[in-house]
Amino acid sequence: MPRFAFRIEYLGTPFNGWQRQDGQPSVQQAVEEALARLNPTEPRIAAAGRTDTGVHATGQVAHADLDRDWDPARLLEAVNHHLKPAPVAITACARVTEDFHARFSAIERRYTFRLVARRAPVVFDAGQVWQVRHRLDAEAMRAGAAHLLGLHDFTTFRASLCQAKSPVKTLDEITIDEHPYPAGQEIRFHLRARSFLHNQVRSIVGTLERVGAGAWEPDRVKQALEARERAACGPVCPPQGLTLTGVGYPQDPFA
Amino acid sequence: MPRFAFRIEYLGTPFNGWQRQDGQPSVQQAVEEALARLNPTEPRIAAAGRTDTGVHATGQVAHADLDRDWDPARLLEAVNHHLKPAPVAITACARVTEDFHARFSAIERRYTFRLVARRAPVVFDAGQVWQVRHRLDAEAMRAGAAHLLGLHDFTTFRASLCQAKSPVKTLDEITIDEHPYPAGQEIRFHLRARSFLHNQVRSIVGTLERVGAGAWEPDRVKQALEARERAACGPVCPPQGLTLTGVGYPQDPFA
Repeated sequence: MPRFAFRIEYLGTPFNGWQRQDGQPSVQQAVEEALARLNPTEPRIAAAGRTDTGVHATGQVAHADLDRDWDPARLLEAVNHHLKPAPVAITACARVTEDFHARFSAIERRYTFRLVARRAPVVFDAGQVWQVRHRLDAEAMRAGAAHLLGLHDFTTFRASLCQAKSPVKTLDEITIDEHPYPAGQEIRFHLRARSFLHNQVRSIVGTLERVGAGAWEPDRVKQALEARERAACGPVCPPQGLTLTGVGYPQDPFA
Repeated sequence: MPRFAFRIEYLGTPFNGWQRQDGQPSVQQAVEEALARLNPTEPRIAAAGRTDTGVHATGQVAHADLDRDWDPARLLEAVNHHLKPAPVAITACARVTEDFHARFSAIERRYTFRLVARRAPVVFDAGQVWQVRHRLDAEAMRAGAAHLLGLHDFTTFRASLCQAKSPVKTLDEITIDEHPYPAGQEIRFHLRARSFLHNQVRSIVGTLERVGAGAWEPDRVKQALEARERAACGPVCPPQGLTLTGVGYPQDPFA
């Protein structure tokens, strides 16, 4: 059976996350049902990142085996047609070999988190940013974040339900940019790693927000990391600011 | 009666434009009803730009006369409280003198139009961008736009229902930026003038899109302008990419 890789964009707001669950809307189900309109049997798809409820994607990658061969450009158009009106779109599609697995072949995941600081309620981007009402010190957040770069035991920044075998991960990038935002300030966090623990990004951003607010000294991030216990973590921030922006493979299937 | 100026942000999607109309939701009505919760009588408000159905704002300015004096920061919080859950927020509030009029004192309006070119449907920013499916040549659009800068008779780029006394206006700025967009291309048009004719921005952007698509030579924009007739205009583009980003006054009321 020919295997296809898809790059998928979605708004997480109306879904209970990526993964299919009985009786709950999921992105996986939306894509599988659209594929079922084109294929005699409903294909199962596997994704690189199983995003949580409310988390968005611009660069999710998944693969599926179809019964017949397709021109990738036509397949993209056909799946997008059947996905409507769900806020999900295929932005790239490619024929791949059978040794490509969207999850197990992936060597890099990239996430962006958007945090808006302003007093007035957010009107644009509602459901796509986390809003706080106090100003944030980006420089202090950068100093705190620097402690997290590289290979560490991230037990502090891991959900208690996390199923990963080991809490040791390498964080390859954590950059913090400031952007203009009407009547406020926007902070974007860009994180990159081979893989992440469950809730790792939201635990890190929630902790760094405390640093930006002045409630934590930047060095307390180092102490929290070294404590290797969940209780040392700052508050886990809400999901809606988080977007999976890309997945890396040894060879880009869409190049 | 003390007069207050408000800077207002809104998503135009659920409203039939700024201006109050019987039986249709309007931004003006939403703000007036929120003010009525704080004031014995419902105040009337006047705005700098009466945006059309589907047009957004990050920098609309309006004024109202209230029965009693308020601390502007407290008034902002109170109005925002009563505006919920409508996608409307006050982002600045100031006490102004009685000779300030949001519409008649304004000496500059600034608009931004977002145009996204890509094949896959837009998921993020749906309702906030105009989407086309073909690539656009920003350089050609800039060459076409250059003909519109300065003082001209804009009859070609004016709605037939436009009530302005004269079609002669000065366009002080029209810049065209390219931005990265996942699996596509985003073009932003920034226009600035003392005032605009009805549908002028949408008539200009719709015409320049034809230039970007290669259907019009850039010089045809000059011929269209010089024709001084509505029939010479390109197609008027849809409203949802348009945002009123700011209004200028001889003295900034919010400074």
